[in-house]
Amino acid sequence: MIETPSLVDQYCHGVFRTELGLGTFETQLGRGGGPPAPGTTFFDTQTGFAVRRLCPPLLGLDAHCPPASYLARRRDLGVLESGRRLLRGSGITTYLVDTGLPGDLTGPGEMAAAGDAEAREIVRLELLAEQVADTSGTADAFLANLAESVHAAAAGAVAFTSVAGVRHPLALTPCPPGPGEVRGAARRWLGDRPVGGRLADPVLLRHLLWVAVASGLPLQLHAGAGDPRAHFGDFARATEGLGTDLVLLHGYPYHRSAAHLAALFPHVYADLGPALVRTGARAAAVLAEILELAPFGKLLFSSGAHGLPELHVVGAHLFREALERVLGAWVAEGAWSLADARRVAGLLAAGNARRVYGLPEAPEPSDRREL
Amino acid sequence: MIETPSLVDQYCHGVFRTELGLGTFETQLGRGGGPPAPGTTFFDTQTGFAVRRLCPPLLGLDAHCPPASYLARRRDLGVLESGRRLLRGSGITTYLVDTGLPGDLTGPGEMAAAGDAEAREIVRLELLAEQVADTSGTADAFLANLAESVHAAAAGAVAFTSVAGVRHPLALTPCPPGPGEVRGAARRWLGDRPVGGRLADPVLLRHLLWVAVASGLPLQLHAGAGDPRAHFGDFARATEGLGTDLVLLHGYPYHRSAAHLAALFPHVYADLGPALVRTGARAAAVLAEILELAPFGKLLFSSGAHGLPELHVVGAHLFREALERVLGAWVAEGAWSLADARRVAGLLAAGNARRVYGLPEAPEPSDRREL
Amino acid sequence: MIETPSLVDQYCHGVFRTELGLGTFETQLGRGGGPPAPGTTFFDTQTGFAVRRLCPPLLGLDAHCPPASYLARRRDLGVLESGRRLLRGSGITTYLVDTGLPGDLTGPGEMAAAGDAEAREIVRLELLAEQVADTSGTADAFLANLAESVHAAAAGAVAFTSVAGVRHPLALTPCPPGPGEVRGAARRWLGDRPVGGRLADPVLLRHLLWVAVASGLPLQLHAGAGDPRAHFGDFARATEGLGTDLVLLHGYPYHRSAAHLAALFPHVYADLGPALVRTGARAAAVLAEILELAPFGKLLFSSGAHGLPELHVVGAHLFREALERVLGAWVAEGAWSLADARRVAGLLAAGNARRVYGLPEAPEPSDRREL
Repeated sequence: MIETPSLVDQYCHGVFRTELGLGTFETQLGRGGGPPAPGTTFFDTQTGFAVRRLCPPLLGLDAHCPPASYLARRRDLGVLESGRRLLRGSGITTYLVDTGLPGDLTGPGEMAAAGDAEAREIVRLELLAEQVADTSGTADAFLANLAESVHAAAAGAVAFTSVAGVRHPLALTPCPPGPGEVRGAARRWLGDRPVGGRLADPVLLRHLLWVAVASGLPLQLHAGAGDPRAHFGDFARATEGLGTDLVLLHGYPYHRSAAHLAALFPHVYADLGPALVRTGARAAAVLAEILELAPFGKLLFSSGAHGLPELHVVGAHLFREALERVLGAWVAEGAWSLADARRVAGLLAAGNARRVYGLPEAPEPSDRREL
Repeated sequence: MIETPSLVDQYCHGVFRTELGLGTFETQLGRGGGPPAPGTTFFDTQTGFAVRRLCPPLLGLDAHCPPASYLARRRDLGVLESGRRLLRGSGITTYLVDTGLPGDLTGPGEMAAAGDAEAREIVRLELLAEQVADTSGTADAFLANLAESVHAAAAGAVAFTSVAGVRHPLALTPCPPGPGEVRGAARRWLGDRPVGGRLADPVLLRHLLWVAVASGLPLQLHAGAGDPRAHFGDFARATEGLGTDLVLLHGYPYHRSAAHLAALFPHVYADLGPALVRTGARAAAVLAEILELAPFGKLLFSSGAHGLPELHVVGAHLFREALERVLGAWVAEGAWSLADARRVAGLLAAGNARRVYGLPEAPEPSDRREL
Repeated sequence: MIETPSLVDQYCHGVFRTELGLGTFETQLGRGGGPPAPGTTFFDTQTGFAVRRLCPPLLGLDAHCPPASYLARRRDLGVLESGRRLLRGSGITTYLVDTGLPGDLTGPGEMAAAGDAEAREIVRLELLAEQVADTSGTADAFLANLAESVHAAAAGAVAFTSVAGVRHPLALTPCPPGPGEVRGAARRWLGDRPVGGRLADPVLLRHLLWVAVASGLPLQLHAGAGDPRAHFGDFARATEGLGTDLVLLHGYPYHRSAAHLAALFPHVYADLGPALVRTGARAAAVLAEILELAPFGKLLFSSGAHGLPELHVVGAHLFREALERVLGAWVAEGAWSLADARRVAGLLAAGNARRVYGLPEAPEPSDRREL
């Protein structure tokens, strides 16, 4: 009844280029990056159950087959072919790919080719700054190169993304730091920094956010622990009317507060994805909560997937199922009209992302290529 | 199966006396007071969809008709007649009206006449203090006049309401400020203040809350951002046993914490309303969450409506539908008895409010007048 | 379809040994320990309605009978016999009993006998320290005796439990205090302390937690007000890899954050119980929320019951009903396989608790005794 033929995944990562053993695969289903507790497995999670339901059929196996059988089949097909089958089975027609995480991950071009889809790049600000630092001799050179790199990135990418608020809460202090403060922080950081060292200085993180805001490109902000209204509220107020959109990522379990911010500020948007991938059989319930307060023009589908094409599949399928179930029920009980439900489904699946990121209308499948 | 013939709206505002254009009407459906984001509309919200479902039939149109058709019909009828039809279609039999917001809004008398209902006044403490300040020459005169005004207001109103916690978190410091501290703060505020200047001084806000607590009239407290247990917990503990009830307003998305406070403290109550108006098709789900922890004698219906009689309609209809659905399901599955469900419905709809605010039992419709 | 023949109640208290009047009984249904608000009753809560639904049939009365009839029947049977009937009707086969609350409550041995079940002790750290203080003359003696008592308790009990985070937020500072700091705090506390005085010193509470962590016995931590990720996050990080499991108790309404912590840290577990006892007809909805993010090997059933055997009954029945409803629906819609659902039900009901606390597999009913 409610269909979403086109899906823009507004935030995801690439997939591993190499074969994965059962243990490595399982770790990707967990949240902490480490091994599961003794006597437990990350396959016993909503994500694990959703992968076992949705992915085996795409590789010719029965839903809910044992993990070992699935991994064996995946190895038989090879990482490339299984990735192609999974990504093409996801229904995603455009991938916006954050290229800022380490690991042997496919880039936008490979995602587009494997998935027969469009793909565009999202630039991670902290990695950009760390790369600039690796090649800049002085604080002044660093700051000049940084400005130039952000400017150059803005020309090619669809969005910036930042984990500044996760690395240091003061990064979201709602005004840009002064030039002297920035130069001093840059000097200290460059002085202490080993090659490849991570950026966690609050002044430089803050500077980075404001340089990105000045670029006008949408800025995706990763939520830290706690209520995004407490963390992002002042930053949102300070950036209102500057012409740059903010997209809040990963709000769960504070997705209602993220939706509330999207209702309060015209330039604030909220994403839908990882809350669905991680909650599996509960995806419809979580989606319904996000749909309480946010204006329907302010919500964007994403998978948030990283490493496993299975997570792109799960994100996309759970989103479509949840949308069908939630909006379908509201239509059935007369709360929404069918026409409104279809229109809102299109906005969440692709329309809002196309508008916010300036993407072209969905091309015919035969025209797809990396933009 | 579960009926609520009498509804006491324990917290709302009046409606605009003047005709509204489409843009002004739409702004009232948003949360931030400003315009919607480019390419979006506040009609694409749960509130917007609920207005389009519930209000057109009261004006002789089809549910879900386009906003422009609805606004045209509203103009044809005139603001007075459309207001009468809407308010009388809401099923609300008593309005408790916060008269403390600016704008050309109807007062309790007009609400009673338009809605064929009772109406009583809720006095907003900050406005009262600002009005007293406008006519007081010295700090001592201000404080004496303030005490007298609060006392006089308490004689005529059913409750005080305050946004002190929103204006300054320290306003909820759990003890009254000392007399010298209050006098000093009054002197500073009056000295700096332009005519009509807003009260945001934490000492004076705190003083105001404790003067109100001393009056014995129920005190309605607007939630700020964040968990009400963190904000109000200490204030609730400090005011326990003093004989004054506290009613927490606008808890969403922290309505479960507000309900928790209502369970912990005998003098704390929680309202139901705006969470329902703002969440539309999700009102039953949100109501069910509030009903988890709060004793059923501690919850009060409200619409929280402001400006548009459509919001009174939506608040009342969504509440009744949600109650029927939630309690009806519990009866159907055997969790509650039907008799209990009907009794609890009556408490939430009107009984608790009548008890807390000392309102008379529901009179026959022909006897209604402003009290 | 989904059965849980064996239930390990991983956190509860004993029941009152003496007869209770209606007022005392009612107080146990509330949350604050005091009387209900004028004109209200704690029977008008989800817990009250659940007690009235589930307990009268176990004593030969109709479900939903009036409280006075139920209490009369309870008195006729006597506190011992009614307790036996209720506990044996709960379906709980193992009780883990926190013996650290005051009042004339049954201990593990009596719970086992009355309930025809196993029972083991949970030792409350703060009470242990207070008891040691009562019999220790000097700070050095106190600290030595404390270490010995914790060591001795660890040999007989299945777990420690602590309310340190509730008594003082700094108790969760994520590193053990230094020896000098501890000795100074002990000296000050013992110097000021009346016999029976409560431990609320943050340094000693912290010391106590780290002594318990060193014992290797699972440590159950009571949530204070607010998000457990904010409170426990750093403590969890600091204790990762030390070999001691942490079990978060009483997370509601932050149960999703508690579940999130259980997903992030291999040694962190979350309990299910009181959120269900307190939410009655909503238990399935709350359980479903907890099942969103937590790995299914990290959740443990408990009743959290205290004083009234009715609360053990309600906790167990609501848990089993909620499990049947939530997992049954996921199986019915194809999200989970039936085999997985049955396996997960067994983990939540008993399997995870047996693994974490090192309990033997469920014995045959005829073999039950206090261990």
